[in-house]
Amino acid sequence: MTRPGLLNEEKVFKDPVHRYVHVREELIWDLINSPEFQRLRRIKQLGTSYFTFHGGEHSRFNHSLGVYEIMRRILETFEGRIKLSRDEKLLCLCAALLHDVGHGPFSHSFEKVFRFDHEDWTKAILVGDTNINRILRRMGAQFPQKVSEVIAKTYENKLIVSLISSQIDADRMDYLLRDAYYTGVNYGNFDIERILRVMRPHEDGVFFKYSGMHAVEDYIMSRYQMYWQVYFHPVTRSAEVVLRKIFQRAKYLFHHEYEYRIEPVQLLPFFREQVALRDYLSLDEAVVLFYIQQWKTEEDPILSDLCERFLDRNLLKYVEYNPRDFKLFAELKEIFSEAGIDPDYYLEVDSTSDLPYDFYRTSQEEERIPIMLQMQSGELVELSQKSVIVEAISGKRRFDYKLYFPMDKIQALPKEISGKIRERLGVMEDV
Amino acid sequence: MTRPGLLNEEKVFKDPVHRYVHVREELIWDLINSPEFQRLRRIKQLGTSYFTFHGGEHSRFNHSLGVYEIMRRILETFEGRIKLSRDEKLLCLCAALLHDVGHGPFSHSFEKVFRFDHEDWTKAILVGDTNINRILRRMGAQFPQKVSEVIAKTYENKLIVSLISSQIDADRMDYLLRDAYYTGVNYGNFDIERILRVMRPHEDGVFFKYSGMHAVEDYIMSRYQMYWQVYFHPVTRSAEVVLRKIFQRAKYLFHHEYEYRIEPVQLLPFFREQVALRDYLSLDEAVVLFYIQQWKTEEDPILSDLCERFLDRNLLKYVEYNPRDFKLFAELKEIFSEAGIDPDYYLEVDSTSDLPYDFYRTSQEEERIPIMLQMQSGELVELSQKSVIVEAISGKRRFDYKLYFPMDKIQALPKEISGKIRERLGVMEDV
Amino acid sequence: MTRPGLLNEEKVFKDPVHRYVHVREELIWDLINSPEFQRLRRIKQLGTSYFTFHGGEHSRFNHSLGVYEIMRRILETFEGRIKLSRDEKLLCLCAALLHDVGHGPFSHSFEKVFRFDHEDWTKAILVGDTNINRILRRMGAQFPQKVSEVIAKTYENKLIVSLISSQIDADRMDYLLRDAYYTGVNYGNFDIERILRVMRPHEDGVFFKYSGMHAVEDYIMSRYQMYWQVYFHPVTRSAEVVLRKIFQRAKYLFHHEYEYRIEPVQLLPFFREQVALRDYLSLDEAVVLFYIQQWKTEEDPILSDLCERFLDRNLLKYVEYNPRDFKLFAELKEIFSEAGIDPDYYLEVDSTSDLPYDFYRTSQEEERIPIMLQMQSGELVELSQKSVIVEAISGKRRFDYKLYFPMDKIQALPKEISGKIRERLGVMEDV
Amino acid sequence: MTRPGLLNEEKVFKDPVHRYVHVREELIWDLINSPEFQRLRRIKQLGTSYFTFHGGEHSRFNHSLGVYEIMRRILETFEGRIKLSRDEKLLCLCAALLHDVGHGPFSHSFEKVFRFDHEDWTKAILVGDTNINRILRRMGAQFPQKVSEVIAKTYENKLIVSLISSQIDADRMDYLLRDAYYTGVNYGNFDIERILRVMRPHEDGVFFKYSGMHAVEDYIMSRYQMYWQVYFHPVTRSAEVVLRKIFQRAKYLFHHEYEYRIEPVQLLPFFREQVALRDYLSLDEAVVLFYIQQWKTEEDPILSDLCERFLDRNLLKYVEYNPRDFKLFAELKEIFSEAGIDPDYYLEVDSTSDLPYDFYRTSQEEERIPIMLQMQSGELVELSQKSVIVEAISGKRRFDYKLYFPMDKIQALPKEISGKIRERLGVMEDV
Repeated sequence: MTRPGLLNEEKVFKDPVHRYVHVREELIWDLINSPEFQRLRRIKQLGTSYFTFHGGEHSRFNHSLGVYEIMRRILETFEGRIKLSRDEKLLCLCAALLHDVGHGPFSHSFEKVFRFDHEDWTKAILVGDTNINRILRRMGAQFPQKVSEVIAKTYENKLIVSLISSQIDADRMDYLLRDAYYTGVNYGNFDIERILRVMRPHEDGVFFKYSGMHAVEDYIMSRYQMYWQVYFHPVTRSAEVVLRKIFQRAKYLFHHEYEYRIEPVQLLPFFREQVALRDYLSLDEAVVLFYIQQWKTEEDPILSDLCERFLDRNLLKYVEYNPRDFKLFAELKEIFSEAGIDPDYYLEVDSTSDLPYDFYRTSQEEERIPIMLQMQSGELVELSQKSVIVEAISGKRRFDYKLYFPMDKIQALPKEISGKIRERLGVMEDV
Repeated sequence: MTRPGLLNEEKVFKDPVHRYVHVREELIWDLINSPEFQRLRRIKQLGTSYFTFHGGEHSRFNHSLGVYEIMRRILETFEGRIKLSRDEKLLCLCAALLHDVGHGPFSHSFEKVFRFDHEDWTKAILVGDTNINRILRRMGAQFPQKVSEVIAKTYENKLIVSLISSQIDADRMDYLLRDAYYTGVNYGNFDIERILRVMRPHEDGVFFKYSGMHAVEDYIMSRYQMYWQVYFHPVTRSAEVVLRKIFQRAKYLFHHEYEYRIEPVQLLPFFREQVALRDYLSLDEAVVLFYIQQWKTEEDPILSDLCERFLDRNLLKYVEYNPRDFKLFAELKEIFSEAGIDPDYYLEVDSTSDLPYDFYRTSQEEERIPIMLQMQSGELVELSQKSVIVEAISGKRRFDYKLYFPMDKIQALPKEISGKIRERLGVMEDV
Repeated sequence: MTRPGLLNEEKVFKDPVHRYVHVREELIWDLINSPEFQRLRRIKQLGTSYFTFHGGEHSRFNHSLGVYEIMRRILETFEGRIKLSRDEKLLCLCAALLHDVGHGPFSHSFEKVFRFDHEDWTKAILVGDTNINRILRRMGAQFPQKVSEVIAKTYENKLIVSLISSQIDADRMDYLLRDAYYTGVNYGNFDIERILRVMRPHEDGVFFKYSGMHAVEDYIMSRYQMYWQVYFHPVTRSAEVVLRKIFQRAKYLFHHEYEYRIEPVQLLPFFREQVALRDYLSLDEAVVLFYIQQWKTEEDPILSDLCERFLDRNLLKYVEYNPRDFKLFAELKEIFSEAGIDPDYYLEVDSTSDLPYDFYRTSQEEERIPIMLQMQSGELVELSQKSVIVEAISGKRRFDYKLYFPMDKIQALPKEISGKIRERLGVMEDV
Repeated sequence: MTRPGLLNEEKVFKDPVHRYVHVREELIWDLINSPEFQRLRRIKQLGTSYFTFHGGEHSRFNHSLGVYEIMRRILETFEGRIKLSRDEKLLCLCAALLHDVGHGPFSHSFEKVFRFDHEDWTKAILVGDTNINRILRRMGAQFPQKVSEVIAKTYENKLIVSLISSQIDADRMDYLLRDAYYTGVNYGNFDIERILRVMRPHEDGVFFKYSGMHAVEDYIMSRYQMYWQVYFHPVTRSAEVVLRKIFQRAKYLFHHEYEYRIEPVQLLPFFREQVALRDYLSLDEAVVLFYIQQWKTEEDPILSDLCERFLDRNLLKYVEYNPRDFKLFAELKEIFSEAGIDPDYYLEVDSTSDLPYDFYRTSQEEERIPIMLQMQSGELVELSQKSVIVEAISGKRRFDYKLYFPMDKIQALPKEISGKIRERLGVMEDV
């Protein structure tokens, strides 16, 4: 088996964000053409965001190519600054291209209900019996494992890990620019060319020349804005809530002897929580949407109602919610139950939070590597010590709680009950 | 039943092409929220183009909102120039919004194999038993019929028809800009603001102030470029060929007693060519892609092979083809048959042609209404008489023929046969 | 005298920032065509910034049209929300168009040395014997005075004043977008359409719907970035220092019996600080640059050296400077004097500072009107109470001090002296 | 004298068109900082176009950096495809940077009246006693001469010449993109990245891969549009006519003993047509505009009137003109003379023409090198043989004639005469 070399002729993809994606390596070309990677065309990058921003219909395939391209450009700027072997460079490129290969359809909701983590599937695809594994192994028997470790942040070379997973990495840079472009929201723009120009590699990661501090600030602000304007949009989250409830109900029915009109064959392994790699790889958005459409005409009124809501974008309404107000939630739950609206499916608190930047945090969730600036003197200084704006938001986690409910069902209740609920929710006619 | 009025507050959609889509009319808002219109979210605007331009993943929902918005702006520029009643304006807006509502998944290929025209379904959705029909009827019993006539170009008011169907209309202007934006191909750009500024209504259509001639020229060039660069791209057409063959094979099997592992319930009416409106409305890309995925593991080798090709983007290769060379095609067909590659599914000529602009043509296909310029003197002159560039391309239909075949299958044949085929095709190792 | 009405046909200017500038009012059209307004074509918007950002060569004419256009759009969004008479609307448009009409060439440096304020000249042009005054008086004898008051912020209607002078007004919004566009710096971008959409008028000013808070945040961040990245760029300030020193020297020579080779006729009134309106109006960048070029060959070595530096962009170098380090400055001054480099012209501290946003400040300089958000409940809340980012930077003035000096002259000194200076400045070979 | 090498650190200019201009060579850096090159900051790229498109205020400095940057990128794509020595590459870069260095203010009009060609000055600056010459000579005594030959198209290496002067070269590509950007006219956009990607060097020039044909077509259409929309705009040409008449009158007065209030010292060599290099280099737009402003108050009524028109943008009006209608011109001339309007200064035919593309033409003016496409077979084919659009416009020269006159002066004449003139001109009240 010969190790893969360069293509006879460079291949390019026209890309609206980076103008062109350039592929010179046979290895990369073969990975892109593998079934497991092509499958990402059938999974949306932004899950349910297209219900809020109709432009946000792009796939994870689209984004993955973009991350690869940014990585390729980063490596180009590293030329002459740090010594990376050809294998290490290909490792970076493969990790960038494949970092999301384990994602499934509507991962956020799907994983929550069926209790798994797409990162485990990413690993399984890289090291398991797949085309991607076979392609990677042409670089050496250990190569798939290494790619997997880079993506899992356990690889020994911290520089390589940080290029794909840090507070300013190829993945984040691509999705901010890309999601901004497709949704039409212009908060996600920042000067990536400048950031790449001032990025410098060192043994354990990267730093940025001080002269580029404002570009980095601008990136962090873009990130902040995109999170609150797009990713955490309450309408998008309403669609996620509905989706979660669909999956929850479908699973519940399966475990309670419900007879489906059409058996959801492809989903049974997930209902049973016994999923083989092959089952997982045959899952895509078409499969999920197919069953949601079938279920619209199922007999179970909760399942069919939720599916209809999702397909026809008749989502749940919401109000701000104080997470400490346990009494309110309990009361509403009771009124809902009495009124015949099952609160397990129609009353939901969705919370979200974001930490725009942090320089040091030892927590369960995620440790943050600080962004370092290199002063003219050569000294390295942590970003928030120089940037008043970044300092202001460092370590400040912002939370958002919303309470979701079906306004149309409430309005259809007898006036008295409906009034009681509305009074508790603090909403008048329309939300 | 009260006629729909204005919304309490204007609604907006963030749109990357027109920045914002503005909705003030209750009628439009309700149409957008109807299940039949929401279904367009599950149908891609550009069919299989995403295989060539990964950015082209946007839906017909996306485009339909854009056509509506352009129409809204056109009507704004008409204020004070021509008298249109509120009903006529709403007629324009509804026709713009709904002109594609009858489209199905991958229409181009699907309609060819199952022999129907999505325009008939558009009509059926407007005048049949649908939510859209009920919403439209609030404007009067005849209103749905009128919308249908505008879209079908049979409505008596030629001005209104021309706004949605002419050589420079709201539909074409939106799709050129939109498809260019999402694919990242910048040939589709033209100055729509200027075109709208110089557009003037008259009884039977519109004309353009002479001062805006260059903007109109530029639009026609954009159209020309987008057709040849994007819409007719040979790789996109290869995916269409594969898709057509999938549908053809699936239908054939159905009519020849093949037993499907999983019965393609939603497609049976199409196989039988007996489709009810309800069947049609439950069809979307998820359904088609679901079955393509199922069929990948069907026993029939042709069906499973074609489905695998489509899903994994292992498409057919192509060479230029001289449509008068009947002998070549016959010869190849024979060699293919002998070699065990069924030419009905693996050898296909795809032809396409475009007429970028015409000022007068009485043909079966389509009559072209000329684009008129208004000179400073007030006189109306047909565009190609003033524009040397448009004159140069007027009435010149350009054709393109490609012959598609599975290179991998040919390469797997015994060297001698493979060499004979390659020699006939005029291709060496790689295409 | 008839009051000016609407133009027969709308006039438009192609504008790269707002796409088109629309003029419907005869009054505005005539003002644009007045000599005093056309003069703004000969004065750069960004003074010496083009030495740093070569794209920043646009004129105040360019910007003034933009402010007018934003004001026109603001008034459009106010339709139906507040009652403004035709006169009041024209007052807004005139104030927007003419707010900078009193600017002279390189105002920043020129005004400092010749001790005047361009705002006084704006007033003089509006109420004095000028074409602009004659045009404005067609609206009534008091109209020019009113325009002047709006620009001077003394007009009684606080709403009107705030549209042109507040922390988020037509002037600032235009220059941030425009300067970003021409320089190519993309930090200045924000979503002006959204801001205009959520802007609501009330008696004493404007507020913004809470749903648009992020767009306002983004505007404030853009402002912050543009100040530090573009407006306060140390190289631009170096050019300003050189220019100031040129004016200072030219004035000094005039007051000390120096005989100019060519008498700077147009500048004499400024040297004498006795300037008539007519003198002022005949001043533009061409006049200043003409004399700078003449002075390049003057006998006075300081004047000719400084002019050569300016023309050939051989500017002063700089280091960070601690404003409290009086000793350093005194020492350097002495060494410079001894070394024959006149410190009055070749050693200069330039300081700058910015307060990105403030909600309340009673100071000599400028009182800041807070930006108010309207919550869904109707309540008005000051921006920084809702925005963690704005809160973080509110009222925090940031300062920057730089010490400027001619590195080439220092390098030409005997090694010992040069070394002493360099050691004090903390610079090695290159800066 | 050591030959110039690489800079310690790459320098960049922020450029709105190419995002960044990169300078790695000491030689280029020094050339940019030379007084002769900095002088280009004081000369507008588009002459009087800013009267029509207010955004078109950018300088030749701005454009020259852009041409250099495109050349730098072209050379990058040539790496590995053709062998160019370091000297040859620097020759290309210098020729790109300096190709316009001999331009003076408002060259078009200025050169016509004072009868010289800026190309001769370009040569003089390169080979004469200038800083630029001294800098270039560090590459070898013959280097300045070589740069001059490349710009003059007489250099032996045809490939190098064609990169800067052909139908698709670095100069044209930059000005189309740049002028489009600053004016805001979007007709000038084309996909330069794609063009550079498909450009291939050969001994005598370049060719383009057939796959990029549409990008080349699009470039040619952009060129065509920019010429007719921007460069030949009749209002811009009106300003040129006024300017020409100013220079013509000023020169006439000088030769007829007129005593100027302020002697136009810097212009005397031009009046005498005896210009030294030093005189030429001290000329810039500031000097010309300075005198135009002085002349506004000269006693000669023609000179002062024309200068006022130019400064206050009170230009001449125009009508279409048939160049064969000698009688009309003679008649008008007579009526003008009788009415006291000197036709030598107030009646002018301005003609312009453009040949968008040609593949072969032996003419006096300019020989056109055809654009060649390389087919997949390797064969080279001339563009218009493949592109129906380019074929349609090849070799078709388009002409435009306009007759310019002062409408205000005509309107001020006795009604009878004014009516007679207007009737001949075919204009009513307003033009």
